[in-house]
Amino acid sequence: MARIPAVLFPTMYIKKQRLLTPGPTPLLPAALHAMMGSDIHHRTEDFRKLYKQILSDLKEVLNTSSDVLVLVASGSGGLEAATQNFFTSGDEVLVCSAGKFGERWVEIMKAWGMRATVLSAPYGEAVQPEAVEKALHENKNIKGVFVQASETSTGTEHDVKRMGEAVKKTGAIFVVDAITGIGTMPLDIDRWGLDVVVGGSQKAFMIPPGLAFVTISPKAWQLAESSKAPRFYFDLKKERKNALNGESAWTPNTALLLAFAEALKYIKNIGMDKLVANAQLLAQATREAMQALGLELFSSAPASSVTAVRPPAGMDSGVIIKEFRSHFNAIITNGQGSMKGQIFRLAHLGYFDFHDLFAIVAELEIILNANGCAVPYGKGVAAVQNAYAAVALPKPEPVAVS
Amino acid sequence: MARIPAVLFPTMYIKKQRLLTPGPTPLLPAALHAMMGSDIHHRTEDFRKLYKQILSDLKEVLNTSSDVLVLVASGSGGLEAATQNFFTSGDEVLVCSAGKFGERWVEIMKAWGMRATVLSAPYGEAVQPEAVEKALHENKNIKGVFVQASETSTGTEHDVKRMGEAVKKTGAIFVVDAITGIGTMPLDIDRWGLDVVVGGSQKAFMIPPGLAFVTISPKAWQLAESSKAPRFYFDLKKERKNALNGESAWTPNTALLLAFAEALKYIKNIGMDKLVANAQLLAQATREAMQALGLELFSSAPASSVTAVRPPAGMDSGVIIKEFRSHFNAIITNGQGSMKGQIFRLAHLGYFDFHDLFAIVAELEIILNANGCAVPYGKGVAAVQNAYAAVALPKPEPVAVS
Repeated sequence: MARIPAVLFPTMYIKKQRLLTPGPTPLLPAALHAMMGSDIHHRTEDFRKLYKQILSDLKEVLNTSSDVLVLVASGSGGLEAATQNFFTSGDEVLVCSAGKFGERWVEIMKAWGMRATVLSAPYGEAVQPEAVEKALHENKNIKGVFVQASETSTGTEHDVKRMGEAVKKTGAIFVVDAITGIGTMPLDIDRWGLDVVVGGSQKAFMIPPGLAFVTISPKAWQLAESSKAPRFYFDLKKERKNALNGESAWTPNTALLLAFAEALKYIKNIGMDKLVANAQLLAQATREAMQALGLELFSSAPASSVTAVRPPAGMDSGVIIKEFRSHFNAIITNGQGSMKGQIFRLAHLGYFDFHDLFAIVAELEIILNANGCAVPYGKGVAAVQNAYAAVALPKPEPVAVS
Repeated sequence: MARIPAVLFPTMYIKKQRLLTPGPTPLLPAALHAMMGSDIHHRTEDFRKLYKQILSDLKEVLNTSSDVLVLVASGSGGLEAATQNFFTSGDEVLVCSAGKFGERWVEIMKAWGMRATVLSAPYGEAVQPEAVEKALHENKNIKGVFVQASETSTGTEHDVKRMGEAVKKTGAIFVVDAITGIGTMPLDIDRWGLDVVVGGSQKAFMIPPGLAFVTISPKAWQLAESSKAPRFYFDLKKERKNALNGESAWTPNTALLLAFAEALKYIKNIGMDKLVANAQLLAQATREAMQALGLELFSSAPASSVTAVRPPAGMDSGVIIKEFRSHFNAIITNGQGSMKGQIFRLAHLGYFDFHDLFAIVAELEIILNANGCAVPYGKGVAAVQNAYAAVALPKPEPVAVS
């Protein structure tokens, strides 16, 4: 049988588009299909039943006694709501910044006239809980501490448990951007003192962008009483009042809510702990594969939401992103801002499975070889296979590449 | 970072269901989405425009001047229509049978009272064109020759070109079940004398089951004039008459037709020759991967629609099917009838790509190791990567597993 002539490539073959980024993430089919039912009206009993179910399921999967409210907004809208509802211009706050999203907190503080002390970690490193403890100890006027549970831009995880314990002892509230943290790392909202937690629909919740949600602890509600920041659309008290009746303050995104209800059902069914373990295991297998291929991990405190990897020396990571798209129609992400070209990022949050990872690593091996970085075909894949076998097979007996 | 405890598996993780069988095949998303537009009526100008477009596009991708008609039926309905419309009880016909679908032709001949001479090949082998030539030479009364272009049950390809040339010289018509042949092998309907060709929607056309289609040459129409077999639903003359007006004889499956229109647009866009080359290349890479893993191919004349593989000695292929489902939620197929347990089948027809194949082979390696057949992880994947690199990379330079 003769080989297919090379001239037919690369246009000849089927390339399914695959969205493999840390947000938007791959979509849950049942949730997508549910969006077709969106010829409903939001001031009806049917809608109220749906909305109440969503808020109740969300509370259940987040395992919190805090109030949980949903907003028609991107995650960034949720971050603003988490600021605007609790503070007043001139308030002193502490911001942990370890990447582009930490910098976004700083921008929000600036926009709202807050006096922010910024604890910065270099890209790829985490802000240490000790630094938070020290800063809180030195300044008793701090009213809020802001952090990313998982800093998506660098693939770095913060120790929000220890930070939360430190904040708990003060009068400040702990505001956690967990947009990529939820569903990829353990988050004990109540016990760890995570007063305000922000999430988004397009992450581990497996549905398209457009919904943010916020949890609010009693301590945060209390602080809200003294907040004098102007607000209209992101009015959490108004949302809470409406939510009690199964309604949203403003016109809700019905299509996404129908999808959200399905996704929550799916997550309840597999269990939030298992969803987290899934991301952790994929992240671990990815790290082992990158190491097997001789690639350096970017973060010293790697998150399970997304793994940031340095390209081989001398190679711009944009080449890898571009080749994933041109060869395999797979969309993966570059570094952001000054990290552009320095890293590529492989996501694990939400609707990702081993099938995805086997293929992604096989494709990366091809791309590396095609760009002057010789790696043995199958070596990274074997690392993923071994990681899978170690946990999924009755007798974990890793088989080495011969 | 500690390993995830094995006790969490195998229930813990996300398992996307993946349909990887030789029919139904993976679905084209744009085609699926188009089904949402099916609140249309079939006796309107909008529908007539759609239907005419489908018939015209189908004719174009099949590259034939024969008439092309669509039926609301499974492929088997198309096979019956291809018999019922051209012959009469008692007619002498020749049937090439090399598997379960060859046997289906025999059953259909029996149901319609035809006098069939059956040229059988053992499972895994093809009927040779010489046998057809000889049989036609020996019996001048033969009115029809029936064959599978691609025998799906064994993954075997027939040489329909040479068979067609032999039939062309006689008064008989050549009736080809190309349900899995279309889009996976070259088929020059007009030049090769393929008088009646039967296809189905759920194969290389990437949409769900429910539509069959039939091409009819002038020679076949001529024979149809003398046919006295009773018919009502599968009346091709009636369909032809209606098709000229952009209508179907009976209520059409509007959802599937909307999907079909999208799929045809997609196929026209990449080109039928490229769709065929895609399947051929995936099939070739699969064969090379199986050989790298020491597995025996079942067919001596392997088709590009589906590759039938023998499991390792002593292993029932059902174990492999079951483990693909339980570990990876991937649906692949066993052998049919007496071949059950003897082979497993990996499909390539339609909406399959290399991403799929990398993962499938990685999963097969895990399953083999988990069931006592030690193969080095990544070895079969490397064979697929080399096959890809050989045709898709600027400088084909296969890298061996170290």
